[in-house]
Amino acid sequence: MVGKRARCVFLGSLLAFAVIQAALAQTGPLPSWNDTAPKQAVLKFVAEATKEGSPTFIPLPERIATFDNDGTLWAEQPLYFQFLFGIDQIRALAPKHPGWKTKEPYKSVLEGHVEQALAQGDKAVLEIMMVSHAGMTTAEFDKTVRDWLATAKHPRFKRLYTDLAYQPMLELLNYMRANGFKTFIVSGGGVEFMRAFADKVYGIPPEQVVGSSGETKYELRPDGPVLVKLPKVAFIDDGPGKAEGIQRMIGRRPVFAFGNSDGDQQMLEWTAAGSGARFMGLVHHTDAEREWAYDRKSHVGKLDKAWDEAVKRGWIVVDMKKDWNKVFVFEK
Amino acid sequence: MVGKRARCVFLGSLLAFAVIQAALAQTGPLPSWNDTAPKQAVLKFVAEATKEGSPTFIPLPERIATFDNDGTLWAEQPLYFQFLFGIDQIRALAPKHPGWKTKEPYKSVLEGHVEQALAQGDKAVLEIMMVSHAGMTTAEFDKTVRDWLATAKHPRFKRLYTDLAYQPMLELLNYMRANGFKTFIVSGGGVEFMRAFADKVYGIPPEQVVGSSGETKYELRPDGPVLVKLPKVAFIDDGPGKAEGIQRMIGRRPVFAFGNSDGDQQMLEWTAAGSGARFMGLVHHTDAEREWAYDRKSHVGKLDKAWDEAVKRGWIVVDMKKDWNKVFVFEK
Repeated sequence: MVGKRARCVFLGSLLAFAVIQAALAQTGPLPSWNDTAPKQAVLKFVAEATKEGSPTFIPLPERIATFDNDGTLWAEQPLYFQFLFGIDQIRALAPKHPGWKTKEPYKSVLEGHVEQALAQGDKAVLEIMMVSHAGMTTAEFDKTVRDWLATAKHPRFKRLYTDLAYQPMLELLNYMRANGFKTFIVSGGGVEFMRAFADKVYGIPPEQVVGSSGETKYELRPDGPVLVKLPKVAFIDDGPGKAEGIQRMIGRRPVFAFGNSDGDQQMLEWTAAGSGARFMGLVHHTDAEREWAYDRKSHVGKLDKAWDEAVKRGWIVVDMKKDWNKVFVFEK
Repeated sequence: MVGKRARCVFLGSLLAFAVIQAALAQTGPLPSWNDTAPKQAVLKFVAEATKEGSPTFIPLPERIATFDNDGTLWAEQPLYFQFLFGIDQIRALAPKHPGWKTKEPYKSVLEGHVEQALAQGDKAVLEIMMVSHAGMTTAEFDKTVRDWLATAKHPRFKRLYTDLAYQPMLELLNYMRANGFKTFIVSGGGVEFMRAFADKVYGIPPEQVVGSSGETKYELRPDGPVLVKLPKVAFIDDGPGKAEGIQRMIGRRPVFAFGNSDGDQQMLEWTAAGSGARFMGLVHHTDAEREWAYDRKSHVGKLDKAWDEAVKRGWIVVDMKKDWNKVFVFEK
């Protein structure tokens, strides 16, 4: 009497179980991360931090996770995307500034020699870009960034820049939030540039974006108040500035921090120096095929001293090629 | 047959109903606010902002409410409490700085002539206080503030300074949060000074405190990294600076803002200039008996131009004496 039908039910159940297991494996946390050391370290940290009563437990308000942006949450080659935006802006604004034709670094940019403009160093370029937006209101600048992000295409991938967010990091942001962590960006990029897309792309609201900023001036115009951008840098949120920015804007020490370059070294040191459970991670760009491969010798996103410190102190270094089974969401 | 028992039940029910009503009236929102225009305006704003589908509905992420601190959330007489802290600090640190005995404004402070030190204006005093803490790490400064708040007593009330938070405003903060608003402090006070008590006293976490700040320097010491306070102001979050601070630190326009002095005028203008439902409020100090009475002529917390603008534009002005049935929690 234990006939065909019962056997079918049993086999069917086994099959259903296998299907559910496979689905769970695919939809478990961090599916774009291979089951290698970095994923294991994240899962272990979160399990310990959220286990009530354990000595590694982190109370909810202290669950502050900070992420660098360029090279950590989205790509940064061949140049920081904000620089590419700035170059497009200098070209667009040039007709209103005839003097730029003969004045460096605008001259180089307008003549197509971007590398010469960049030879001045990142900070100089950031300053130049801020200067080139002086006179705009913050609302006008926001619209300009949004328009650019909605239309400009990346030279290699021919896609919107926001498509170049890293799928594994989007999963990590969601995973951290699902476990009660408040996710912040702490980046050398301009705070108003990043806020134009951070909410939509990363799920990080404007008030949780810390970045470099320029001075502004409050003006009460006939149709209401505006903030006008001035040609003066207020704060550079890079290197040691990241620890200062965290202190000034967040006011608590992170327990979890992810970066990818020497500009993140002090943020990771500052995070590591707190007591209790900690996680410090670096993305190492090792995948020339799917993304880019660069580290010690790179002009953009140089990873040299911070890498040595990570190895020495046992911080997590993600090998993009080995540890991520997907880099961008559009990959097949 | 409708005898004594039924009547008793009926009367008992009536009594129970009355008791419940009375309890509701006492435990309803904002019990320390009289049922006058300001309370009605708050209740109306929140009802409209939270009514889904209505044109005045404000989506959750946009529910940003900003509050000035001195004179709005806690008292500010006879001097901003941070100044009283600074004076105590100058006295405490004087033995290490023999030069202060002959150098203004330290000389005046040390000789007990505080009013002479203050004649230089608020910004100068704020700068002087920052200078006097130069060389301390941010952790040392935080401890100094906490120690002072735990022991120093207000000259008039002989109570801890944190006891001088306004009970009606504590209720308002809770009420706004219960309705999905994210509450921020936006104050001219030093951000690190306020963070030492804002969480405990107001329920406002460090990352939601915007204030004035000084420059710091990152140092990697043998026992770990520190941020050392430098004798240089980085940002003054007052007057037009409040609109700038909101833009730089929060990155969204508030929909609700409360202040009490001319230093809050631009924050209220900036809030008012957004579209949709808005609330702009000012606390007017009218109660010399329970607190203080001051406005147009006051050195501390001067309310003059902002008051005129409030009247002209229909912003809410709280008459402390008339609109609050309780000022401090310790009142009987």
